[in-house]
Amino acid sequence: MENSDYIFGIHSAIEAIEAGRTVDKLLIKKDLNGELAIRLIHLAKDYGIPVQRVPVEKLNRITRKNHQGVIGFMSAVAYYSLEDILPAMFEDGVLPFLLVLDGITDVRNFGAIARTAECCGVNAIVIPQRGSVTVGADAVKTSAGALLHIPVCRVASLPQAVQYIKDSGCQIVCATEKASENYTLGDYTTPLALVMGAEDTGISPEVLRKADTRSAIPMFGKIGSLNVGVAAGVMMYEVVRQRLDGNLEII
Amino acid sequence: MENSDYIFGIHSAIEAIEAGRTVDKLLIKKDLNGELAIRLIHLAKDYGIPVQRVPVEKLNRITRKNHQGVIGFMSAVAYYSLEDILPAMFEDGVLPFLLVLDGITDVRNFGAIARTAECCGVNAIVIPQRGSVTVGADAVKTSAGALLHIPVCRVASLPQAVQYIKDSGCQIVCATEKASENYTLGDYTTPLALVMGAEDTGISPEVLRKADTRSAIPMFGKIGSLNVGVAAGVMMYEVVRQRLDGNLEII
Repeated sequence: MENSDYIFGIHSAIEAIEAGRTVDKLLIKKDLNGELAIRLIHLAKDYGIPVQRVPVEKLNRITRKNHQGVIGFMSAVAYYSLEDILPAMFEDGVLPFLLVLDGITDVRNFGAIARTAECCGVNAIVIPQRGSVTVGADAVKTSAGALLHIPVCRVASLPQAVQYIKDSGCQIVCATEKASENYTLGDYTTPLALVMGAEDTGISPEVLRKADTRSAIPMFGKIGSLNVGVAAGVMMYEVVRQRLDGNLEII
Repeated sequence: MENSDYIFGIHSAIEAIEAGRTVDKLLIKKDLNGELAIRLIHLAKDYGIPVQRVPVEKLNRITRKNHQGVIGFMSAVAYYSLEDILPAMFEDGVLPFLLVLDGITDVRNFGAIARTAECCGVNAIVIPQRGSVTVGADAVKTSAGALLHIPVCRVASLPQAVQYIKDSGCQIVCATEKASENYTLGDYTTPLALVMGAEDTGISPEVLRKADTRSAIPMFGKIGSLNVGVAAGVMMYEVVRQRLDGNLEII
């Protein structure tokens, strides 16, 4: 269990959401019903907060206090809406550079990637609501604080978000070992979103299908696989290299 | 305490060294003397094994067994001699690409760097005897096995080793934030040794003084520092990019 910040109790959860605090995820006891529970679940839906129904034992393992069947994990950062920030970039004359993380679950990898992204002038990180790390205190710490400076957009559907980014005029660049094209041969001087996949399974097929460019980092040894944090760094700095070469502004 | 493999007892230590097993480091109780102890210390000197005199409490914390004042940490890999492998590279027509790690102490960083190095076709990794990680089972694991495929040279003096590499005809490229030149402007198509420094203190002044090229990775955000594993990956893949562009063989 990640040692994240959490709140417990049905009233606390409702109040936290209504007060505008960013709740990453709600765990609710399987058979919890009643008026307040229904109100909480509706609220969660309105605010796009994932709800997980769990056995009471799972809640008891997290806290021995009187949780009343509800535990909410708090985010250490506020999430941004992609629909708010991407059009604003184009309007402000910024050359968009988004980073989409499809299924990164290791907090340390996520932190390292966010740290590199901040150094590269990435404008925003996009993660899915489910099947990704939660951006808690641990993630902020491993990012060396980068997550406090770079907007994170958490989306309900990653394929839909990638389609939206593509329709907005960004090139979708998927880093995948299955690609035949060396990553340095792509043209990264356009508006773009770089997609990195989970270390074990890579980018999901639904997202990969939307790629304009599939780029592979060449490997010469026997083990043939890079740490995803390193692979992301190599890809991001190739974007920076090409943009500096083209005298484009990075940030 | 890193959960590395170790042996204990004065006879075991002598036998391990004489049998040719690679001992990373010997801890010997402060006031341990006598004929066998002196023999062990001479052996260690002959084989270039660092000896540390420690209070008995330190040994007791590592094992409760009868250590007789001696604990030896075993290496998971055999070390190579720089003087053996570097001339052989030139003779074999290989374009040398060495990686010198000056003071990396975090096993996970070291493992990630070794993993990337193996993927990039680096010919050997050079580390100092003191002030570096020991290449134990943990390091091999975090390297995804890369450390079983790539030679590691452990040297008594890093500045002397770098001088030797330089005299052999390699360009010494130091990655340092203090450099003014963007790392992509260097020419990495020559024989070369890339030097990466410790995350906190960077490359030591004695080694930095020997640099032919000082290269900086540009930073655009607010935090202004990369994880050393990521920085090493970016540098190594720039070497690969230039060599592929120049139609040079990588490995």
